[in-house]
Amino acid sequence: MSARNPQPPAGLVEAFRAFEQAQAAGDSAAIAALFAPGDTTLRGDADGLAVGHAAISHGAGAGAQRRLVQTHVQTIDDDHALVVAVTELPSGGRGQQTQLWARLDEGWRITAAHVSVPSPPLDARIWRIVGDPLVTCTDPDGVLTGETVAVKDVFAVAGQRVGAGHPEWLQHAPVETEHAAAVRLLLDAGAEIRGIARTVELAYSLTGANPHHGTPPNPRAPHRLPGGSTSGPASAVSLGHASIGLGTDTAGSIRVPAAYQGLYGIRTTHGAVPTGGMLPLAPAYDAVGWLARSAFLLRAVGDVLLPEQESAGHETLVVVPALLDLAAPDVAAAIRAWLPRLTREEHWPLDRLDEWVTAFRTHQGAQAWEAHGEWLAPRLDTLGAEVRRRFEEASLIGSEQAAEAARIAAAAGRTVRELVGDRILVLPGASSVAPRVGDGVAESAADAAADHGAAREATLRITCLASLGGLPAVSLPLRTAEGLPAGVCLVAAPGRDRDLLDLATRLS
Amino acid sequence: MSARNPQPPAGLVEAFRAFEQAQAAGDSAAIAALFAPGDTTLRGDADGLAVGHAAISHGAGAGAQRRLVQTHVQTIDDDHALVVAVTELPSGGRGQQTQLWARLDEGWRITAAHVSVPSPPLDARIWRIVGDPLVTCTDPDGVLTGETVAVKDVFAVAGQRVGAGHPEWLQHAPVETEHAAAVRLLLDAGAEIRGIARTVELAYSLTGANPHHGTPPNPRAPHRLPGGSTSGPASAVSLGHASIGLGTDTAGSIRVPAAYQGLYGIRTTHGAVPTGGMLPLAPAYDAVGWLARSAFLLRAVGDVLLPEQESAGHETLVVVPALLDLAAPDVAAAIRAWLPRLTREEHWPLDRLDEWVTAFRTHQGAQAWEAHGEWLAPRLDTLGAEVRRRFEEASLIGSEQAAEAARIAAAAGRTVRELVGDRILVLPGASSVAPRVGDGVAESAADAAADHGAAREATLRITCLASLGGLPAVSLPLRTAEGLPAGVCLVAAPGRDRDLLDLATRLS
Repeated sequence: MSARNPQPPAGLVEAFRAFEQAQAAGDSAAIAALFAPGDTTLRGDADGLAVGHAAISHGAGAGAQRRLVQTHVQTIDDDHALVVAVTELPSGGRGQQTQLWARLDEGWRITAAHVSVPSPPLDARIWRIVGDPLVTCTDPDGVLTGETVAVKDVFAVAGQRVGAGHPEWLQHAPVETEHAAAVRLLLDAGAEIRGIARTVELAYSLTGANPHHGTPPNPRAPHRLPGGSTSGPASAVSLGHASIGLGTDTAGSIRVPAAYQGLYGIRTTHGAVPTGGMLPLAPAYDAVGWLARSAFLLRAVGDVLLPEQESAGHETLVVVPALLDLAAPDVAAAIRAWLPRLTREEHWPLDRLDEWVTAFRTHQGAQAWEAHGEWLAPRLDTLGAEVRRRFEEASLIGSEQAAEAARIAAAAGRTVRELVGDRILVLPGASSVAPRVGDGVAESAADAAADHGAAREATLRITCLASLGGLPAVSLPLRTAEGLPAGVCLVAAPGRDRDLLDLATRLS
Repeated sequence: MSARNPQPPAGLVEAFRAFEQAQAAGDSAAIAALFAPGDTTLRGDADGLAVGHAAISHGAGAGAQRRLVQTHVQTIDDDHALVVAVTELPSGGRGQQTQLWARLDEGWRITAAHVSVPSPPLDARIWRIVGDPLVTCTDPDGVLTGETVAVKDVFAVAGQRVGAGHPEWLQHAPVETEHAAAVRLLLDAGAEIRGIARTVELAYSLTGANPHHGTPPNPRAPHRLPGGSTSGPASAVSLGHASIGLGTDTAGSIRVPAAYQGLYGIRTTHGAVPTGGMLPLAPAYDAVGWLARSAFLLRAVGDVLLPEQESAGHETLVVVPALLDLAAPDVAAAIRAWLPRLTREEHWPLDRLDEWVTAFRTHQGAQAWEAHGEWLAPRLDTLGAEVRRRFEEASLIGSEQAAEAARIAAAAGRTVRELVGDRILVLPGASSVAPRVGDGVAESAADAAADHGAAREATLRITCLASLGGLPAVSLPLRTAEGLPAGVCLVAAPGRDRDLLDLATRLS
């Protein structure tokens, strides 16, 4: 060991060796025991900074065979020293760990650790394929020149397959010969395709968890779910890997990740943006959408993808307390604090909301099974538990039940459109902030997602309104009193997408 | 600030703020001044650990606008404290910095810093496109199942363009409709294509520096050149991003990165592996090659790509002191220490070596200009200085001069083949360890490369022998006494590739 003070304090080297042994053995308990107790102990890695021994214990213990290449000790006094070690993994690449050790009554303990490991070639939780760029733009002087797009893995990119968040699907998919319509429009406007980003299996979940290639991180709210199903594009935009996340929204797949990750997002009017080359989930509700870190870029993409606006309307904002209160108190409070002064409060007749949600879910399920049932039926066991259950339920929906649900959903859509009228409805983007992921590994993310079924049900009661009505919805980022990302949605009559995007730039 | 001891020591907060201000302003001098003087001060980031104030000063000062999201102070005593800060970049993503501060006579100074920034979507110095995987294998039960390939950006990958390390080339390249022959063979054997890795411009340099997208890192020898022109695949294999690096070797483009990065590599017998779909540099010398972290995998790839072996020979190793001494003393010493006991020492008539090198360089240049001159002539100013100079020189070679060079080169090749005979010649892989990169940024890497022209010339005197003879060469990793990677090459008669690969597994 080289050393600032050539003599490390007594016992430190032994403690450090014990830590390395525990690490090599993947012994979580031994690792946790070498961190100082209390709520000021720190451990930071690429997934974020964990504060307090309890939070650290969750994350510790990813055992890895590694070789110490260099070790430096800076001795502060008999009871404190900093250890900086460079490690090399058998698979190649070097990492670094910096540890502040203190001699407590119980012995040498780490009070702060900072761990870096070699970056993987790509973060496979976020991306399936990524390039510099993957596809160059067709017009280097377009309005979107300099922007990069993370394409949700449900859109065709020429030369690539569509993966749909499901390895079995990818394996059977043909190589696409043409770009999806929305992808082509973005390339023609000067944007480059950064890559193909992950989604939940067949885009059929709002959590963002994926059992096959891990759950994308939520950089704005570490150790929490990213939201889905446009999960990969959302994380890519949050991390600055791309500036635009191209996705879809059937039941909230843009709005939920926008809320969970503090992004701007739009679900467009049903049918407004061409869906050629886009994998369907439930065509009656599927809409193209996108995410960005600014309202201005969100609008600039709208200028490229949206048709000329024909509908007109007012900028009167309307809030319905009963709908606001479908969200958790912290989210509702953040929205109330944000509401512009002239917002009108209205009380809507929502006694049939339960029936609407059920009809929406049933009709969506029937459509999803119609789209994919034949292919999926012999392969249900290749799906993760959550999406599998959903498709299994969908497979049981009879044609009469589906027709009845479609009828109720259509009527609900008409009612929602009448209630919104030519005003702008303010809704929560999701019913809560992003739920916590147990300990950051994929399976536990799925467990966490399952545990938060209640939050998802509450979210669907809110998000289904725009889906039923075929309405555009623009999500703006807010923060709760605790500082966590949350979303507020502006919903208007079909065709008023550009009005909402304009308003978002003024309100942001 | 939260704090282990709620009261940070006097003056620390001000010092930390000064550091953040210097960082925001990109003020390298102010940043360097806040690091403690002396040779035990540490600063680590993704490019490695810098030890000593002088090394740190080189690297500091990449100014970035960032927002402090969290700051934690662990006060040790009145003169020592650890500061852990989480930062957020305007483009998204969070980083962490951990700093040990000490109050010296001159004021508060950092004695150790560990900096993590959000990972980019891909390391564009190493990769142009990368996927999980980019191309799936065609046989999931092949002998290379589970292996991943970094393909040098001179081989066709269906659906992609060939970039040749040069943005202008990429822009004009057609989308390939078929995989190159070597790529197809690897896919058919069960390997997956991880991605398309960087090369130097048109593969015409041995340093690995590239002025367009940065010089790939050398993970086994931080802050040193990666070697080229198979630079991206070599770094990808060193980092564990891929297990196989597929490349080419005209004048040492496999052997030099293997030596600089401590990898196993093979340049195959000229013509032994099909070159369909491979961009030529100088067809008389171009050979397919590959890199791996183990001799066993190197051989396994050979079983897939090489024809059945027809030539036979002995395992007698021969070393020529005059050739060994073309390498720097540390490299020559490492090879002497490694030499098996029964190695025969021989003294070859090498008085014409200078003439051979010149003929090789001239013939290579003439072929390169024949291959690319027409396209390059109006675009020479799109090349970086080093490769531009080389093509400019090539453009001046007259046809008679080229024919004369070809004649001398052919005769030299015959002489080399006769001298090697049915034995195995031991040569340095490169003339030195990897030269240092000035301060880690691309332009300075090019400068460093230019400064090391002498090392490159010396390398060419060694590597041209196998190139002239069309001989296979297998590079094995060694370490110098100082612990730096170096390479030893085994060279044999044409067609003895498999013998060399077998021997490499026994010697490793």
